[in-house]
Amino acid sequence: MMRTRPLKVALLGCGVVGSEVARIMTTHADDLAARIGAPVELAGVAVRRPDRVRDGIDPSLVTTDATALVKRGDIDVVVEVIGGIEPARSLITTAFEHGASVVSANKALLAQDGAALHAAAEQHDKDLYYEAAVAGAIPLIRPLRESLAGDKVNRVLGIVNGTTNFILDKMDSTGAGYQEALDEATALGYAEADPTADVEGFDAAAKAAILAGIAFHSRVRLDDVYREGMTEVTAADFASAKNMGCTIKLLAICERARDGGSVTARVHPAMIPLSHPLASVRGAYNAVFVESDASGQLMFYGPGAGGAPTASAVLGDLVAVCRNRLSGATGPGESAYAALPVSGMGDVVTRYHISLDVADKPGVLAQVATVFAEHGVSIDTVRQQGNNGEAALVVVTHRASDASLSGTVEALRKLDTVRGVASIMRVEGE
Amino acid sequence: MMRTRPLKVALLGCGVVGSEVARIMTTHADDLAARIGAPVELAGVAVRRPDRVRDGIDPSLVTTDATALVKRGDIDVVVEVIGGIEPARSLITTAFEHGASVVSANKALLAQDGAALHAAAEQHDKDLYYEAAVAGAIPLIRPLRESLAGDKVNRVLGIVNGTTNFILDKMDSTGAGYQEALDEATALGYAEADPTADVEGFDAAAKAAILAGIAFHSRVRLDDVYREGMTEVTAADFASAKNMGCTIKLLAICERARDGGSVTARVHPAMIPLSHPLASVRGAYNAVFVESDASGQLMFYGPGAGGAPTASAVLGDLVAVCRNRLSGATGPGESAYAALPVSGMGDVVTRYHISLDVADKPGVLAQVATVFAEHGVSIDTVRQQGNNGEAALVVVTHRASDASLSGTVEALRKLDTVRGVASIMRVEGE
Repeated sequence: MMRTRPLKVALLGCGVVGSEVARIMTTHADDLAARIGAPVELAGVAVRRPDRVRDGIDPSLVTTDATALVKRGDIDVVVEVIGGIEPARSLITTAFEHGASVVSANKALLAQDGAALHAAAEQHDKDLYYEAAVAGAIPLIRPLRESLAGDKVNRVLGIVNGTTNFILDKMDSTGAGYQEALDEATALGYAEADPTADVEGFDAAAKAAILAGIAFHSRVRLDDVYREGMTEVTAADFASAKNMGCTIKLLAICERARDGGSVTARVHPAMIPLSHPLASVRGAYNAVFVESDASGQLMFYGPGAGGAPTASAVLGDLVAVCRNRLSGATGPGESAYAALPVSGMGDVVTRYHISLDVADKPGVLAQVATVFAEHGVSIDTVRQQGNNGEAALVVVTHRASDASLSGTVEALRKLDTVRGVASIMRVEGE
Repeated sequence: MMRTRPLKVALLGCGVVGSEVARIMTTHADDLAARIGAPVELAGVAVRRPDRVRDGIDPSLVTTDATALVKRGDIDVVVEVIGGIEPARSLITTAFEHGASVVSANKALLAQDGAALHAAAEQHDKDLYYEAAVAGAIPLIRPLRESLAGDKVNRVLGIVNGTTNFILDKMDSTGAGYQEALDEATALGYAEADPTADVEGFDAAAKAAILAGIAFHSRVRLDDVYREGMTEVTAADFASAKNMGCTIKLLAICERARDGGSVTARVHPAMIPLSHPLASVRGAYNAVFVESDASGQLMFYGPGAGGAPTASAVLGDLVAVCRNRLSGATGPGESAYAALPVSGMGDVVTRYHISLDVADKPGVLAQVATVFAEHGVSIDTVRQQGNNGEAALVVVTHRASDASLSGTVEALRKLDTVRGVASIMRVEGE
């Protein structure tokens, strides 16, 4: 039973993602109508630079006044693909106040203000969907929020930033250094002119906050996520990783503490075994492992960015929100009832790979081993390489808390025989 | 805002999956209540043998009269984990008539009668959910039906039967023959005493029918799915596959024809390159690739069977159906508006690996090549191995229709110099 009055969609932003959304809404209009049960109509497109709007969009729909567009009152769904905090936040809030539901791809905003936006949506009995905010086309928010709604998620571990995965994959496969690999990523369009958000892990941290909040039914904000970028990963680190049968990935890791009473969320480079499925995620692809009590290990893999893949996620949400609209219902909103506190990095328990520059003389290993023991960090393997009075000592630990490891490293730096700590890298996925 | 009157759930079947559903409903009652917005109560459990019901289930809930249970009128959701066609079909229909929504894990029934069951659900304004029917815990139905609702799916390619993947993986890694690998699978509990449904591809074909129907918004029934089992895969086939840098998997493949006017669905063993992500799916795991216009290639991976993983999928659906119940809405029903016809196997276009036993004399290759050419099947590579008057000829083709290939093989069999067609295997995933 097809309703004939169309649902009206306002598009905020018409860049790489927005123009794809508009294109698919036009080219797949009949399919979308059949799947929703009513036609959808692009009722307005708000942009900053109307001269740049792409082909195929009716110029009469284009406006620079986004606020007026979301205030029109006849808009059913606002699709926000501007990104950034403002004006996106105000526009979304205004949209709810004026009767629209919202589909957003805005990870930064949701990681910072997700709770407030969800509250605004609920207050006005509207939907807020944002599958496209995490891992592009990969269905992840919906599976976590709905498919696993009857399960207990214990861990989310994934590669959620394509730019850094491209760079690390390049370093791994060619032996290139960080700068060289970054330059190639920039030349190929995988990295932005200012790559800070990607390479310093801000983008991945925002996604980790969103995933952790949904997975653990708690509020996790961007500030709660421990973050280390990957700019200091070297070719030597990759050589060390290879020695261990590992590669290096920038991982987002959200974990429930073993006692169940708290959660952690973190983003940092880590060694993972080559046998782990995440090790073979190439180029700019994303992949996320989800470990739950009943379902065991699930993995979701696909293109984590790009106009068309992100638009696919936006349109999936658009169909869902339109269906809800027609049935007079709303979909699942924020679920933060568990209200688990977020612990700091010191509570994280994992393994470590530590490279030390030490004096090449007898007794050094004994000194170093004593420091580890004093801090309760158990050593798995040690490898020593001597060379003209200087030596490298590579220590791989058993599982230990980050706090214990930090204490160990601090004490190691004070040893006369330790000339420097060349690198510390966590080992995950074992 | 928690409603205090509980939603009532009737469980049909309390075997491996049903007992896990009941267990999780008890142990995770508070979480489920928080996520649904109302408590859920196990109101009855219908079984054939009440003496076998497991610990933890209140004996007063157990009944052998499943029909009376679904007719009670106070049941909100019926969970059907009996399997098979009858009595499951009648019970589900009766459940709708008496006001309940249904969550089912019944692939055979849905592949055969999905359209009629969806119609019954719609007639009574109830939900029919069945994530657990395909690939156990792996979220696949919901992503296809909802996350990709704004995209155009062109291909679904996957390993959807854990038993056969375990057997093939064993043959690949140990060089074992089919029977030896099957015996091990049986001993370890991965294969049933009568493994027919798995090894002959019936189970995978049912899943292919369900996936194709949802992916292409059309009706695809079990009878529409071309099916070849994997009982004739030999150690020699694995050796041939290795020569090509491939392994062998039992694949379910659902494709939209290039002209978009029809679809195909099939299950058969196939060679896939070792570099393809499906090649590294080990043991009883499942994995499904989905290729769409906008999203590109997505992959979903996880445990495809087992009590707890399947229960996870059932409970995810249960939460969704309960939420719908509370909001007075129903979720997405059958979407078959595209009504694409299902073509037969002859229209499928793929590549082939053919092993021929031929006479070891001059001119045989020319004869064979002529037959391929006459049927319009282009040869990619040929490998010849001579030995005492007998020879093996291994031909790998370019893409050709199954009909052309069948014609080629029929003509080859008539050549005096061809003593036998040792094996024909499709090559996928390139």
